[in-house]
Amino acid sequence: MTRLGELQTPALVVDSAALEHNLRTMSAALPGARLRPHVKAHKCSALARRQAALGHRGFTCATLREIEGLAAAGLGEDLLLANEVLDARRLARVHARVTVAVDSQETIAAAVAGGVREVLIDVNVGLPRCGCAPADAARLADLARRSGLEVRGVMGYEGHAMLVEDGGKRSALVSDAMALLRAAHAEVGGDVISAGGTGSFDRNPVATEIQAGSYALMDTAYAKLGLPFRCALSVLATVISVSATYAVADCGLKALGMDHGNPAIDGARVWFCSDEHVTFAPEAPVRPGDQIRVWPAHVDPTVAYHERLHLVAGDAVLESWPIDLRGW
Amino acid sequence: MTRLGELQTPALVVDSAALEHNLRTMSAALPGARLRPHVKAHKCSALARRQAALGHRGFTCATLREIEGLAAAGLGEDLLLANEVLDARRLARVHARVTVAVDSQETIAAAVAGGVREVLIDVNVGLPRCGCAPADAARLADLARRSGLEVRGVMGYEGHAMLVEDGGKRSALVSDAMALLRAAHAEVGGDVISAGGTGSFDRNPVATEIQAGSYALMDTAYAKLGLPFRCALSVLATVISVSATYAVADCGLKALGMDHGNPAIDGARVWFCSDEHVTFAPEAPVRPGDQIRVWPAHVDPTVAYHERLHLVAGDAVLESWPIDLRGW
Repeated sequence: MTRLGELQTPALVVDSAALEHNLRTMSAALPGARLRPHVKAHKCSALARRQAALGHRGFTCATLREIEGLAAAGLGEDLLLANEVLDARRLARVHARVTVAVDSQETIAAAVAGGVREVLIDVNVGLPRCGCAPADAARLADLARRSGLEVRGVMGYEGHAMLVEDGGKRSALVSDAMALLRAAHAEVGGDVISAGGTGSFDRNPVATEIQAGSYALMDTAYAKLGLPFRCALSVLATVISVSATYAVADCGLKALGMDHGNPAIDGARVWFCSDEHVTFAPEAPVRPGDQIRVWPAHVDPTVAYHERLHLVAGDAVLESWPIDLRGW
Repeated sequence: MTRLGELQTPALVVDSAALEHNLRTMSAALPGARLRPHVKAHKCSALARRQAALGHRGFTCATLREIEGLAAAGLGEDLLLANEVLDARRLARVHARVTVAVDSQETIAAAVAGGVREVLIDVNVGLPRCGCAPADAARLADLARRSGLEVRGVMGYEGHAMLVEDGGKRSALVSDAMALLRAAHAEVGGDVISAGGTGSFDRNPVATEIQAGSYALMDTAYAKLGLPFRCALSVLATVISVSATYAVADCGLKALGMDHGNPAIDGARVWFCSDEHVTFAPEAPVRPGDQIRVWPAHVDPTVAYHERLHLVAGDAVLESWPIDLRGW
């Protein structure tokens, strides 16, 4: 049995009990096909297999690599590429059921050229990112059908609501967004209304399936929302230098997504991160060689830096899983 | 010959002429052993080989993986691990001359346990990160020598000066830092005073060798300093969605180091990045399928996300180099 102290640092560690709690809590709230777990947050087919074992057999992906990796892992029963691609030819070699988001004539043409058979019309519901204007959804659905594609329905990600801390405001934003999506769906047709995320999993009754991903591992940004999920993911680091007022550990910008700001360290104030270091002021003395846990502010771009994650229980490393879906 | 348009995006591309200009400009300023290129910025042994071909045979590393990778690439003539490690045992299996930075009795003990033979005393010269107090350098040098280690000299990184835009202030900060390092060196002895970076390469006469790395590829943060190096590195991205007031390309938080802020796009205003997207307002219309260049604000954590970089001249991809030194 490998112990934490034997891991090379920085190392991505996932608390087994917290992960299990998160997976089961979400499955109880959104059983079976009500949840289409998004793998972009964990990029790990071994973790996806745990989600499938709880009854969630369809997955959401952001990249071709994620689609290919899940298919290779035998998890290709119903994969949604919830993102626009202009070159879908790699999908022609994937043995899986793949549905692709489209929001323009160009992405419809790319789907056809890539041998894709099923699509969702991606509708902009308020986040300035992908998705057609709601009023354009019906035209695109017609174009897709005339191009020989099966239109399964619509998707629309209310990402602008996801991290709003005030629950009432978050609900209102989700509701406004879903009114747009419901109206687009009435025009487009199909069985699927795919939307949502960890921040709206419990307040989006319009979506037939919720694309939540962060709930499995969590991060300090989502933790502020008071959701019933626990922070399961941290970066194990080693204290490498200690001075009178601060200490330094080996977990820097190349081990952490930084777009949501600095990570957190229990019992310490984080000063700043540099490429390979975090400088922090500990409340109690630390020594070179001590291991600490660094809690990332944003799970997705943190995981994407690492080759593997270690599933741990206390001091014991239970399993090590490759982050096999990273890259593009 | 592969063309840019055939690359899967996002893709790291390096302008061949700009890289060549940067390498030659630095070599003219700091010939041979005056420059000990830091590989942490590019993490690419093929690029390090170009630096070695210009006469820089010693390299600076931040991680064990970088040491191992350079040694495996046949570039192990004189490698400096300019960072503290508490477990140096992997170095015992490396066929290369390796010198390690130490700043405490614990890191000295780790060097001995790892079979390391040569060290530098790492001195804090003003950046709150690694390095002993200047007044403690002589004691640590004695301890290292009594532990059987060869002390080659000192190092001290004036990182707090590196991105100061006012040249006069930057020079003053470098000068103050190097006064501390020179005094420590007088106590410690040895031939080596290792310091500096891209921001101080032309204003640090105290260091016997400069540890610059970012100069080869550059980024928008360093570009503000008016240095004689050109931005050679960008992320090639594809426009995947276009709306009335903005467009979206497939280059997000997992393709960009974000700690220095948003990237830049020529002829456009960047609104924000999300995991797999950048939303931007272009001055001239763009269409889905168009390729754009995204200029990262910080080179090091950008490169660390990618598996390879493509050396390009105009529309032609000349070579593709693995980012073989990433990870730890």
